[in-house]
Amino acid sequence: MMLGSMMHQPLLISSLIRHAAKYHGDTAIISRETSGELNTTDWAGIEDGARRLAASLGKLGLKQGDRIGTIAWNNHRHLKIWFAVSGGGMVCHTLNPRLHPEQLIFIVNDAADRAIFFDKTFMPLITGTRQHLKTVEHFIYMGAPDDEVAAAVPGVLFFDDLVADDTGYDWPELDETAPCSLCYTSGTTGNPKGVLYNNRSTMIHTMAISLPDALSLSATETVLPVVPMFHANAWGIPYAAAMTGARLVMPGPGLDGDSLLGLIDSQQVTLALGVPTIWQMLLTAAAKSGSKMASLKRNVIGGSAAAPSMIATFRDKYNCETIHAWGMTETSPLGTANQIKAKHLALDPAAMAKQRLGQGRPPFGIELRIVDDEGKVLANDGKAEGALQVRGHWVVDSYFGKSANTLTDDGWFDTGDVSTIDADGYMVIRDRTKDIIKSGGEWISSVDLEGIAVEHPGIAMAAAIGARHPKWDERPVIVAVRAEGANPSEAEIIDLFKGRVASWQVPDAVVFTDAIPLNGTGKMLKNQLRDKFGEVLIERGASA
Amino acid sequence: MMLGSMMHQPLLISSLIRHAAKYHGDTAIISRETSGELNTTDWAGIEDGARRLAASLGKLGLKQGDRIGTIAWNNHRHLKIWFAVSGGGMVCHTLNPRLHPEQLIFIVNDAADRAIFFDKTFMPLITGTRQHLKTVEHFIYMGAPDDEVAAAVPGVLFFDDLVADDTGYDWPELDETAPCSLCYTSGTTGNPKGVLYNNRSTMIHTMAISLPDALSLSATETVLPVVPMFHANAWGIPYAAAMTGARLVMPGPGLDGDSLLGLIDSQQVTLALGVPTIWQMLLTAAAKSGSKMASLKRNVIGGSAAAPSMIATFRDKYNCETIHAWGMTETSPLGTANQIKAKHLALDPAAMAKQRLGQGRPPFGIELRIVDDEGKVLANDGKAEGALQVRGHWVVDSYFGKSANTLTDDGWFDTGDVSTIDADGYMVIRDRTKDIIKSGGEWISSVDLEGIAVEHPGIAMAAAIGARHPKWDERPVIVAVRAEGANPSEAEIIDLFKGRVASWQVPDAVVFTDAIPLNGTGKMLKNQLRDKFGEVLIERGASA
Repeated sequence: MMLGSMMHQPLLISSLIRHAAKYHGDTAIISRETSGELNTTDWAGIEDGARRLAASLGKLGLKQGDRIGTIAWNNHRHLKIWFAVSGGGMVCHTLNPRLHPEQLIFIVNDAADRAIFFDKTFMPLITGTRQHLKTVEHFIYMGAPDDEVAAAVPGVLFFDDLVADDTGYDWPELDETAPCSLCYTSGTTGNPKGVLYNNRSTMIHTMAISLPDALSLSATETVLPVVPMFHANAWGIPYAAAMTGARLVMPGPGLDGDSLLGLIDSQQVTLALGVPTIWQMLLTAAAKSGSKMASLKRNVIGGSAAAPSMIATFRDKYNCETIHAWGMTETSPLGTANQIKAKHLALDPAAMAKQRLGQGRPPFGIELRIVDDEGKVLANDGKAEGALQVRGHWVVDSYFGKSANTLTDDGWFDTGDVSTIDADGYMVIRDRTKDIIKSGGEWISSVDLEGIAVEHPGIAMAAAIGARHPKWDERPVIVAVRAEGANPSEAEIIDLFKGRVASWQVPDAVVFTDAIPLNGTGKMLKNQLRDKFGEVLIERGASA
Repeated sequence: MMLGSMMHQPLLISSLIRHAAKYHGDTAIISRETSGELNTTDWAGIEDGARRLAASLGKLGLKQGDRIGTIAWNNHRHLKIWFAVSGGGMVCHTLNPRLHPEQLIFIVNDAADRAIFFDKTFMPLITGTRQHLKTVEHFIYMGAPDDEVAAAVPGVLFFDDLVADDTGYDWPELDETAPCSLCYTSGTTGNPKGVLYNNRSTMIHTMAISLPDALSLSATETVLPVVPMFHANAWGIPYAAAMTGARLVMPGPGLDGDSLLGLIDSQQVTLALGVPTIWQMLLTAAAKSGSKMASLKRNVIGGSAAAPSMIATFRDKYNCETIHAWGMTETSPLGTANQIKAKHLALDPAAMAKQRLGQGRPPFGIELRIVDDEGKVLANDGKAEGALQVRGHWVVDSYFGKSANTLTDDGWFDTGDVSTIDADGYMVIRDRTKDIIKSGGEWISSVDLEGIAVEHPGIAMAAAIGARHPKWDERPVIVAVRAEGANPSEAEIIDLFKGRVASWQVPDAVVFTDAIPLNGTGKMLKNQLRDKFGEVLIERGASA
């Protein structure tokens, strides 16, 4: 054996909160309570609360490896729970309150959660599902003792009681591969599946997303994660903020445009993160109020593709740089972020805007490839479209409770997305594998068509689906929801596409509907749209 | 056992160069050859050369764990050697050519290097020491076959021959704790000791130093590591550049001010790193040429304390932000970097300048503390001065070839520095433990006094030492080298200190000398100065 060595410390989530408390103790954490009021604490306060809570969870008989659920907004108690549970060696299981109660029951039972923390907002969800949550021994209300809650949820415990005493608890030493958190994917079909993250995968992800070419976190930033903590770990922001000592602004239940705008301006937010629907609401609120959102330097858009017009509005009207990113629950979630290279610095504005439209390139730690239907690896030439596959330090290997890994024979995870990758590693999502429109053997991206349709001021939301066609197998059809008070015609919408896409990619029809069904994370349920509108061209008399 | 997992990949240096080649293949690596010419390759070229070289080293019989020495400048071949040796599972042992040949012989024999790569510049060092290097089987010249070299070093191999063929070699899977590199500390006393880095410690260090609040590396940067690859791994820049896809400009032997200035301006360098003596030469060259070094946005000063006047010149005259940093061979090396927090953003220019003078705060992964003579931990109040101790993911545990760890009983590494730490974690080096001046029970920082002395245009270099005093035990004395053509008086220098430091901290004498002896890494050998000038106050008649 060779003598000589470096210190070996496990990569643990507890070390993040220790670091934040020690070196960024007085850095503010602002959060909106369910009451609407703003709470201010700091990283020292988060660590103190987390330690007290971890001690109390131990006294309740909860043990390392136990799953602890949360149904909660982004707020300071939720932060303390994250660090208490994961730091204490248990598994923090974030539950999406937007799921159908049946799905929630399935997920809690599948995970065998032994306790559930809940915000007041979600008391009805708890009372409505409680009898079916067989494994849950403790329901813990995220607040002070409250008669109304105690009456509705008999035997309930109160968060504020559990953090009342400091017993001198210290974080346990764990193996770095110990699981720390669990998040179920709410796919558009089938039962949800859980991704079980571990301390190591989370820590390496945390470092990677904080790098300048990913999300660039630092102690000078004030970060607003609009993306919920139950949505793929709020994209890792709570961990990254602790690692880098960033100020955090947690929006609680206030996810409407006016509330977010108020937080951004009053707290001088510099970086905000969320899905496209959030940004649309924020832009509407800002336009109405006249705020220039002067503090906001950057926003990160993920979850769904950002429309080019949205990126342009942030850039041109608000001097805010949009970082378009891509990831999945199965990838912790960061897979790519659109950041430029030195060779792009000299691009003219139009070329630069084009460069930044796609989902970007992988940070160190992630590898991407695209394959055809036979699994043959395709060229990274920016043209070939194939099934996007990924591997890396923070990518799922096997789902919770499943013994088999979920990978290809050669060890890659298939994302279910179709994309291109260019020679520089820049990836562009073309579509979900099952949503791409196959017209006469050629592929048409539903994402592209939707991006153009929503540019029309009379369109509030639009989905592009493949409708059955006797000659071309499928042809694109736009399913659109009109904006309030607007009444655009089908021909007007069709005209939008002319000259913007190849003529054979122009949709054959536009059908208007009152609402497009969304899943629990806000994704359009196109399978339902296909069921409803898939025959529209046949009905209209299309022939071979 | 809980089912469900994330992919587990070892943290390996080979994955860095793979990433760089795959996602930043055409990003330029510019380096100055020993001939003075500039060579241009790219990350794909570095990876290709490294793989070819690793294959050839295997054919020479070199095995995983073997130590391979380098005596070389910062250049593209040295980069390929680093990745070939570490990626191939061997240990890259960087040798400092500025060491006395006796020390070099000791180090090579202690490490039992089996091969040594050398640049042409260092051929005399090889021919002069070769007969004493008992374990070295292969001397490899870093260039094309060359008759002159072959005549001087019989049996020599040529780098360019070893990379001629591509045999399809692929990087081996290694344990992430496999050692990857070795660097000896050239302390000012005693035999040098080797620090044996491993893949894991290096990889975590690489991520940490690339963060925005450390050195902030990204694919838009063009980085000039003036700090040599044989000086604490060039502060980790070659690894971090590969991880982030930065452009690299390697200065080769051209470390004079004019050569560096030429590289900065011609290659549009955005970030440069080096020790204070380098910056002094660069500033002199820039002042002479009139260059504004417009591309240079940031420089990192480490190795020794940066004088406040130097930081101010970069800021005010060149619009270049200085990041003052601290580290040691034993800390991989980054220990701290001076980056501000959100609460400092509103500071006025004078307060901001003061905030940025010290060595900064630790990134996640490093913890600092200060202790008194009895080992009692002192307050982080910005006032208490104590021995600086450190622990973390990339800190030495035991030296190469030594079985005992080198830590305190409770697991911290004592740095040999005296410092303060404030409540925000900002650390200021006050002195080396053995260089601090102890006057009447009070400590006086030699670093502070030197910073003031060198502000005088007539002083080229200055050391502050404690000279023996019958009443105060020690009193400060400045040992100074006059600038060429200048002739400052002792009284003039003493006057500099009045009003700048407490009256009892004003030096008692200034003695002029022709040169101050430096060690192999450019540090002043104050023990020799104390031997020579330690009695000067007694000789001048100081009394109790």
